[in-house]
Amino acid sequence: MATLPILTDEQASPEAAAVFADIRAMRKTDFVNNFWRVAANDPALLKATWERLKEVMKVREGGLDSLTKEMIYVAVSVANGCTYCIHSHTAAARAKGMTDQMYADLLAVVGMAHQTNGLVTAMQVPVDEVFKV
Amino acid sequence: MATLPILTDEQASPEAAAVFADIRAMRKTDFVNNFWRVAANDPALLKATWERLKEVMKVREGGLDSLTKEMIYVAVSVANGCTYCIHSHTAAARAKGMTDQMYADLLAVVGMAHQTNGLVTAMQVPVDEVFKV
Amino acid sequence: MATLPILTDEQASPEAAAVFADIRAMRKTDFVNNFWRVAANDPALLKATWERLKEVMKVREGGLDSLTKEMIYVAVSVANGCTYCIHSHTAAARAKGMTDQMYADLLAVVGMAHQTNGLVTAMQVPVDEVFKV
Amino acid sequence: MATLPILTDEQASPEAAAVFADIRAMRKTDFVNNFWRVAANDPALLKATWERLKEVMKVREGGLDSLTKEMIYVAVSVANGCTYCIHSHTAAARAKGMTDQMYADLLAVVGMAHQTNGLVTAMQVPVDEVFKV
Amino acid sequence: MATLPILTDEQASPEAAAVFADIRAMRKTDFVNNFWRVAANDPALLKATWERLKEVMKVREGGLDSLTKEMIYVAVSVANGCTYCIHSHTAAARAKGMTDQMYADLLAVVGMAHQTNGLVTAMQVPVDEVFKV
Amino acid sequence: MATLPILTDEQASPEAAAVFADIRAMRKTDFVNNFWRVAANDPALLKATWERLKEVMKVREGGLDSLTKEMIYVAVSVANGCTYCIHSHTAAARAKGMTDQMYADLLAVVGMAHQTNGLVTAMQVPVDEVFKV
Repeated sequence: MATLPILTDEQASPEAAAVFADIRAMRKTDFVNNFWRVAANDPALLKATWERLKEVMKVREGGLDSLTKEMIYVAVSVANGCTYCIHSHTAAARAKGMTDQMYADLLAVVGMAHQTNGLVTAMQVPVDEVFKV
Repeated sequence: MATLPILTDEQASPEAAAVFADIRAMRKTDFVNNFWRVAANDPALLKATWERLKEVMKVREGGLDSLTKEMIYVAVSVANGCTYCIHSHTAAARAKGMTDQMYADLLAVVGMAHQTNGLVTAMQVPVDEVFKV
Repeated sequence: MATLPILTDEQASPEAAAVFADIRAMRKTDFVNNFWRVAANDPALLKATWERLKEVMKVREGGLDSLTKEMIYVAVSVANGCTYCIHSHTAAARAKGMTDQMYADLLAVVGMAHQTNGLVTAMQVPVDEVFKV
Repeated sequence: MATLPILTDEQASPEAAAVFADIRAMRKTDFVNNFWRVAANDPALLKATWERLKEVMKVREGGLDSLTKEMIYVAVSVANGCTYCIHSHTAAARAKGMTDQMYADLLAVVGMAHQTNGLVTAMQVPVDEVFKV
Repeated sequence: MATLPILTDEQASPEAAAVFADIRAMRKTDFVNNFWRVAANDPALLKATWERLKEVMKVREGGLDSLTKEMIYVAVSVANGCTYCIHSHTAAARAKGMTDQMYADLLAVVGMAHQTNGLVTAMQVPVDEVFKV
Repeated sequence: MATLPILTDEQASPEAAAVFADIRAMRKTDFVNNFWRVAANDPALLKATWERLKEVMKVREGGLDSLTKEMIYVAVSVANGCTYCIHSHTAAARAKGMTDQMYADLLAVVGMAHQTNGLVTAMQVPVDEVFKV
């Protein structure tokens, strides 16, 4: 029910196939998920998105670890209501070590943030001077 | 420009004042930010929200640390477009040790997540079987 | 800071002026708020929007009363993050009789709904069979 | 397809089972819907959410009635795009007496609010002085 | 799984049937899609929505062409996460001549816009003076 | 009131300054707007975003023209409620030739799309078989 075909390895163009190969190599698995297979209908979009994702998820000295990044990804996906993204990034977070307690904490914060976001917006609370840089 | 008055300590009811006192004690500061001062117009809402927030932000054995929770809070607030919440939780994350590199990582993930959320939704990518629990 | 001029009575076209006159007659006030003055840059949009709003807010036998409609309007505007709409419809709800207790209830429900919306979306809860018509 | 198991009565922990029992007693039905069964994976979240919901939906002297609260809940859920929440709260509103005419009014207001929210945001209409408290 | 019945031609009221007839005449097809069949439960809503849609999609001298309007409709529907709307308006855009290259461009812009929307909101960038009318 | 400093040319790092120079060259103006000046706090983010934006906005044989892309950008920004983005892309669309009539059409479609998005979501209309690829 995607708006574009979910391309098999055989249907992918050489440029798309090269990205699939890189995904497999980076992730050490033969599995290529549907997002990439649909994006492959526009090999340039596929390549640009994958290259940027690799760069963004790369762990830097003094920066965030992989698991924290995945949990932030889940949080954004929930607020944007992206079903596919919630499933894929929750699965990725688990694969990177998210325990049941960590996931419970993530859910609790996500729920709380939605609640206070709603209340603050409803009451139109002005930003305190002290929060302005 | 809030829809309700921003109550001073003097204007707060005894029940609201008790919550202000707990906020000050917990945070070890005399400062009480506008969200609580506006919520104080309904002392029951103020108390319930503060009590729940304390519980949610409490660090548990094997769970997420305070800084990670604040960054998740920021991520949700951005996706929900809550200006006040973005400012207050970004400030809180910095106060809890978020470095420039960590914030750069947070921003990069938030931007990337918005992008792929948009693309996935536009293309209506179906959830892979493997992501289903 | 609108993207179009806020038209004064003098700047409004005859078709727009006629809508302003109807707004004044219906609301029994000389005041015409900014939304209509900006929409007046496209008199056809102004007229269609005003005519539809009148129809939607009209009270029908067995239907919802004006105040309930305004509170629903506020709730949608909060979730959509529309600052102008939150202010104008909260003011309208008050003008139609929303008491402090009613507003406190509205805020509490709005906050709660945002929270459970967030949790349900995060956990991707499937719809119970019993809820399907 | 939830991200966590939908717990049966047998799988629920004693603390979660106690909440299920309270839900059944309050609602005078044996049915416990999926939201609670998924939330039950974190009994503390389940309990806090249920206790707060009970408090928020409780009818207060001079406050909103149950049906109005359910319709506001539906309105927020629509704007947030929460499919489960739309189904469950629309069903709840009907159970509490929402007639076809009331639902037609709710839909009309929800549609209108989305439209003017979109127009106001697109045109960035500044808040009238008179709407500021 | 709609919240209201999907009315067949036989179930539609005379007023709703008249709108169905107009839809068929305007679109030169016998097919009437589900949106109208569900909206038909409130013939007044059905009629008002259809009449306004016809007006909005009408091509005006010096205005936007039909295809551009459909692509803008898709873009809004994606950002609002409306699955039905994404499918129906993407199909409509294709029927009006959207080529694979045009759709690839639409997707790329939609993805980019979501990303910079997210970054700008996260960083709370103030509007440049030069952008204010 | 951004969460990061708005860097002047003097404060920008050499890598950021190089991007500023490319923006000036591409746009044939000395003006560099605040988005880039705030993003410049992370030169890698600045460069990646600018390079991708250039690529996305580049006109391709058989693809969308610049003005259509800007209007789609405005439409997404409205639905996401990004004030800065609405102002900057509306200004950009005007600079690329958007006439008053075109803008009126854009606004009318944006308003209509929000309305039907809201109605469809509220009624949970199932996707017609014919719309599935």
